[in-house]
Amino acid sequence: MAKSLGARLRVEPGGGPVDLSAYDPHGTPGGPKDKKHGLAEIERMRPRLAALQERLFAQSAVGGDRRRVLLVLQGMDTSGKGGTVKHVVSGLNPAGLRVRAFKAPTEEERRHDFLWRVRAALPRAGEIGVFDRSHYEDVLIVRVHDMVPRSVWSRRYAAINRFERSLADSGVTVLKVFLHISPEEQRARLLERLERPDKHWKFSPTDVAERERWPDYRTAYEVALRRCSTEAAPWYVVPADRKWYRNWAVSRLLLEHLERIDPAYPQPELDVAKYRARLLAT
Amino acid sequence: MAKSLGARLRVEPGGGPVDLSAYDPHGTPGGPKDKKHGLAEIERMRPRLAALQERLFAQSAVGGDRRRVLLVLQGMDTSGKGGTVKHVVSGLNPAGLRVRAFKAPTEEERRHDFLWRVRAALPRAGEIGVFDRSHYEDVLIVRVHDMVPRSVWSRRYAAINRFERSLADSGVTVLKVFLHISPEEQRARLLERLERPDKHWKFSPTDVAERERWPDYRTAYEVALRRCSTEAAPWYVVPADRKWYRNWAVSRLLLEHLERIDPAYPQPELDVAKYRARLLAT
Repeated sequence: MAKSLGARLRVEPGGGPVDLSAYDPHGTPGGPKDKKHGLAEIERMRPRLAALQERLFAQSAVGGDRRRVLLVLQGMDTSGKGGTVKHVVSGLNPAGLRVRAFKAPTEEERRHDFLWRVRAALPRAGEIGVFDRSHYEDVLIVRVHDMVPRSVWSRRYAAINRFERSLADSGVTVLKVFLHISPEEQRARLLERLERPDKHWKFSPTDVAERERWPDYRTAYEVALRRCSTEAAPWYVVPADRKWYRNWAVSRLLLEHLERIDPAYPQPELDVAKYRARLLAT
Repeated sequence: MAKSLGARLRVEPGGGPVDLSAYDPHGTPGGPKDKKHGLAEIERMRPRLAALQERLFAQSAVGGDRRRVLLVLQGMDTSGKGGTVKHVVSGLNPAGLRVRAFKAPTEEERRHDFLWRVRAALPRAGEIGVFDRSHYEDVLIVRVHDMVPRSVWSRRYAAINRFERSLADSGVTVLKVFLHISPEEQRARLLERLERPDKHWKFSPTDVAERERWPDYRTAYEVALRRCSTEAAPWYVVPADRKWYRNWAVSRLLLEHLERIDPAYPQPELDVAKYRARLLAT
């Protein structure tokens, strides 16, 4: 049997230091041979994903099954978090989706523990939740800019691992994806946002300033990937310079995780003959 | 210029009593000539809807525009509220969507005013919200089953009108759609749920009991449609026996309302030359 994509892209829990320069952002590991085949495979996966989602939803709605999925998307600006939601997640039934983008915390959120707003946004039983950014920002941008003392952020890795372990224990399949782009690709995407007036709204001057901290972010990501890739909630590194591969890989990872859950339509006790007769009488 | 679909399907605010028997649930008013053309038109509307949604989202994200849309779906069991979400709303970007299905209120919800849970589920600026059932249940099932005294539910029509007026004043385009099916079509759809094991989870014995109260529900709907079709938030009656027409009509109504908002990409002040130079230097 072919190795799963998950097994290929997973950061091994308990492994040594992560060196992102060893991962090619332009690569297509395990992927179709070219864009044309990639797009065709994405289309073929859509109905399978939708069917699995419906069964996941059904088994919680009637069977009381508590399982659900949380897809966490992280990556540098322009790495394609929003694009993945738009192109991959959009194939699913919105009734069973819970998508949340995390921005700078509000006043109220700041008064709580950093995991508070994340807990409030979790998918309910039967749902697929998607986080565009997440609690990882609290060991990424927060660490790079010293927004809290080192003594605070350094304790968060363990707190995150405990939190995600509790999620897994309560039936949440946590699928964490790091969208890995190169600085060259980021430059091209930011330039495109500058050149197209219909993309100006996506351009923020702080994107350029953040880009200048690239090595600090790389280090922060490497530490988070190493310390928080656990058996309960491993990290996956998805090369994201090619959008078609990124969309293919996230679709594929989602599919593999849903297939592992293997949700089934509940078969409630139902006296079909009785209800048919009653219906035919009205 | 052709009359808009909205103008055709709208329940005239301040009009006389509504008689649902005068609306043909199998009709296709203003629609394409057949299913084939209907499905083709739905596909042609998808990219237009998605483009308008993106602009709505963009103008709130950067321009601070407060406008948003709330699509309210009501109708008898099997009328296609869930199907509309699955087939129409699924074409939109999930990042800008907020879908909520209202079930029997929880203990906590019951301790609040009936509009409390509805307020909590409203779309944020720039979003498209969708309600599968809504605060109207509080003058429908609640009225039919005498769940609260008449003196309580009878005051709710005016409360709903004030609430929806305040939504409109704060930038919410409220689009209320009644999916109108015939009792014969409902029977066929319930029988199908009984006959297909993969649809058993959607069948509830209470559906049959509720069906037996059809005339009471019709009256409750007629009153709600008459009393709560206002200039600020009119009701639209969509014949829903034909699924393709239902999907076409809701897509079309959504399109007309978004076109009336006419959202535009914000054009922030941006020193393009400066940022381009800075990007090319990194």
